[in-house]
Amino acid sequence: MKNFDINEDPHRRFNPLLNEWILVSPHRAKRPWQGQNETLATETLPKHDPNCYLCPGNVRANGEHNPTYKDSFVFENDFAAMKQDEIIFEEDIKHTFFKTKPEQGISKVVCFSPRHDLTLPEMEIEGIESIVKVWQKEYAELGSIKYINHVQIFENKGSIMGCSNPHPHGQIWAQSSLPTQVERTQTNLKSYFDKNNRTLLQDYVQAELKTGDRVVIENDDFIALVPFWATWPYETMIVSKRVVNKITDFTEEETNSFAVILKQLTIKYDNLFSTSFPYSSGIHQSPTDGLEHPEWHFHMHFYPPLLRSATVKKFMVGYEMLGESQRDITPERCAEVLRQQSDIHYKQK
Amino acid sequence: MKNFDINEDPHRRFNPLLNEWILVSPHRAKRPWQGQNETLATETLPKHDPNCYLCPGNVRANGEHNPTYKDSFVFENDFAAMKQDEIIFEEDIKHTFFKTKPEQGISKVVCFSPRHDLTLPEMEIEGIESIVKVWQKEYAELGSIKYINHVQIFENKGSIMGCSNPHPHGQIWAQSSLPTQVERTQTNLKSYFDKNNRTLLQDYVQAELKTGDRVVIENDDFIALVPFWATWPYETMIVSKRVVNKITDFTEEETNSFAVILKQLTIKYDNLFSTSFPYSSGIHQSPTDGLEHPEWHFHMHFYPPLLRSATVKKFMVGYEMLGESQRDITPERCAEVLRQQSDIHYKQK
Ligand SMILES: O=P(O)(O)O[C@H]1O[C@H](CO)[C@@H](O)[C@H](O)[C@H]1O
Ligand SMILES: O=P(O)(O)O[C@H]1O[C@H](CO)[C@@H](O)[C@H](O)[C@H]1O
Repeated sequence: MKNFDINEDPHRRFNPLLNEWILVSPHRAKRPWQGQNETLATETLPKHDPNCYLCPGNVRANGEHNPTYKDSFVFENDFAAMKQDEIIFEEDIKHTFFKTKPEQGISKVVCFSPRHDLTLPEMEIEGIESIVKVWQKEYAELGSIKYINHVQIFENKGSIMGCSNPHPHGQIWAQSSLPTQVERTQTNLKSYFDKNNRTLLQDYVQAELKTGDRVVIENDDFIALVPFWATWPYETMIVSKRVVNKITDFTEEETNSFAVILKQLTIKYDNLFSTSFPYSSGIHQSPTDGLEHPEWHFHMHFYPPLLRSATVKKFMVGYEMLGESQRDITPERCAEVLRQQSDIHYKQK
Repeated sequence: MKNFDINEDPHRRFNPLLNEWILVSPHRAKRPWQGQNETLATETLPKHDPNCYLCPGNVRANGEHNPTYKDSFVFENDFAAMKQDEIIFEEDIKHTFFKTKPEQGISKVVCFSPRHDLTLPEMEIEGIESIVKVWQKEYAELGSIKYINHVQIFENKGSIMGCSNPHPHGQIWAQSSLPTQVERTQTNLKSYFDKNNRTLLQDYVQAELKTGDRVVIENDDFIALVPFWATWPYETMIVSKRVVNKITDFTEEETNSFAVILKQLTIKYDNLFSTSFPYSSGIHQSPTDGLEHPEWHFHMHFYPPLLRSATVKKFMVGYEMLGESQRDITPERCAEVLRQQSDIHYKQK
């Protein structure tokens, strides 16, 4: 019998946002890797690609021409996962097992820059700030549509994350229902708020700042950290220090410091394995259902797949799909490694 | 305004096992694919590979020699995610956010065959039956250990699923806690059973047999179907017709018909894209916590990643990670396509 050592011994950690446990196996980081290696996209991209349907002036799938935009550019997804059509639906109460309901929604694509060859960490602060302003505008506009109750802003970066075009862009899926993960998060945020009259993330940020172990970057308004319960190896979360329900509540200063921390975090990510670091990222914030949501606290998740190098990723497969998420390296170690990365992008050196 | 058409219109479906919704976008199947293509493992494998640590007689990472086994062979994972050590742990009640506890467990590897070049669909029924018997034995033995409350049997097949060795094998992770997904499933099975005095899957199988729309294969004892709420394109579930809590409750006939349906289903999978079809599969059944579990009903999940061809997979990324699982082709269509596949393996033709 030995005393529990969180840096060495297998253990479970609790995720209060999703109300679930994950498995941590620190000792397993030593395991040799004999499996699949990802291919690296190493080609240098042109500033403008005549075949890219996101570049300024080019033609899209539906025959439309993109404007010769200067900052960011938003359009409706030509292959949207949801449609705006109103549907007549008579619920069939006989269906215990075949429960279904139509879903109305709008999908948009947000081009981050006219430049085909840039990504967030390589852009100027002003350019990133203009993206944040687009997110604010879209959240407000889409959210004000009567049937839209949730606006999901996200980015899939890198072909390994299913992104089919390297032109820097993100997406927005706005819809009538609260998506599963968001609803689950809301339930937990709400029960914490009802009990403590403070937001869960407000208190969590305090606790993290006190230890400092998992903090990667901090500025006046935001903190970037590896959550105690992170499942992806270099998973991070950017949280506002102030209780901000939604992105449209940012002050001018916050809009700017958010752009700054976005750039800093993604620079560290790129520097980690000297590669354009793939991830899915996305914002969780108040739904747009017209109700008050004092429990919501603005945060942005980054779920990056890489584990050991630019070509070896973590597979969330068998046990993870059937049992629970599992990780081989501690969040504390990952935070430390990210903290140590330079603030200057490796391509600029 | 038009009437809802489940084959055409975006909708959400409800998963009663996990108590969550998923998004279905049938019209989106027409979307062109310009993203990443997976590499195909096309090399023909030798019957015995001197460099494979799973082949009979070869040396493993820890220096041990594998026996010259004839059917299947089980050993403890040299890089286990959990350890058997008992750990002294004093819970720190001050930790609202840093909730953790040590986890005890055992990980085993199950080699399915001495042949390096075979997979389940290419094996004889007797060989598959012997694997099922190993699963029964391991479930019983591991489950009888005092601190083991759950035995997860699973297989990661194909390098795309993080499998690092093509030698046919699966794994067993046995541990003291109920993993997150299993606990969630148990909660829902139990509340259904408490209300109806029948298992949820017993009634679900009846409902599926009545429509037949999603049934892929049926024999006297088992049914293989694409669940109404499937998230992966060609996801399936094998369910026992009789209420069976756990694999050790199989009759002789059931052990045989389970081996038969396993072979038939995996043959159809391989034939679908004329490739060794990748997936993660695993069994959900009664925990081994020593309590009665009348709510549990034996089933095996298959989560395969391929979407359009042997090289184009479905990416569960951005929206799926932050919002909810999303699919582009209906479960009914996938069941139909699987049903139409030949029962003879394409390599045997
Ligand atoms: O144990 P293996 O086969 O080396 O590893 C594989 O299966 C495990 C259990 O699903 C996963 O945690 C790993 O990410 C995966 O690569
Ligand atoms: O919409 P895209 O970029 O074509 O598609 C990508 O993002 C979507 C939203 O996360 C996913 O559903 C797709 O699987 C992925 O390939």
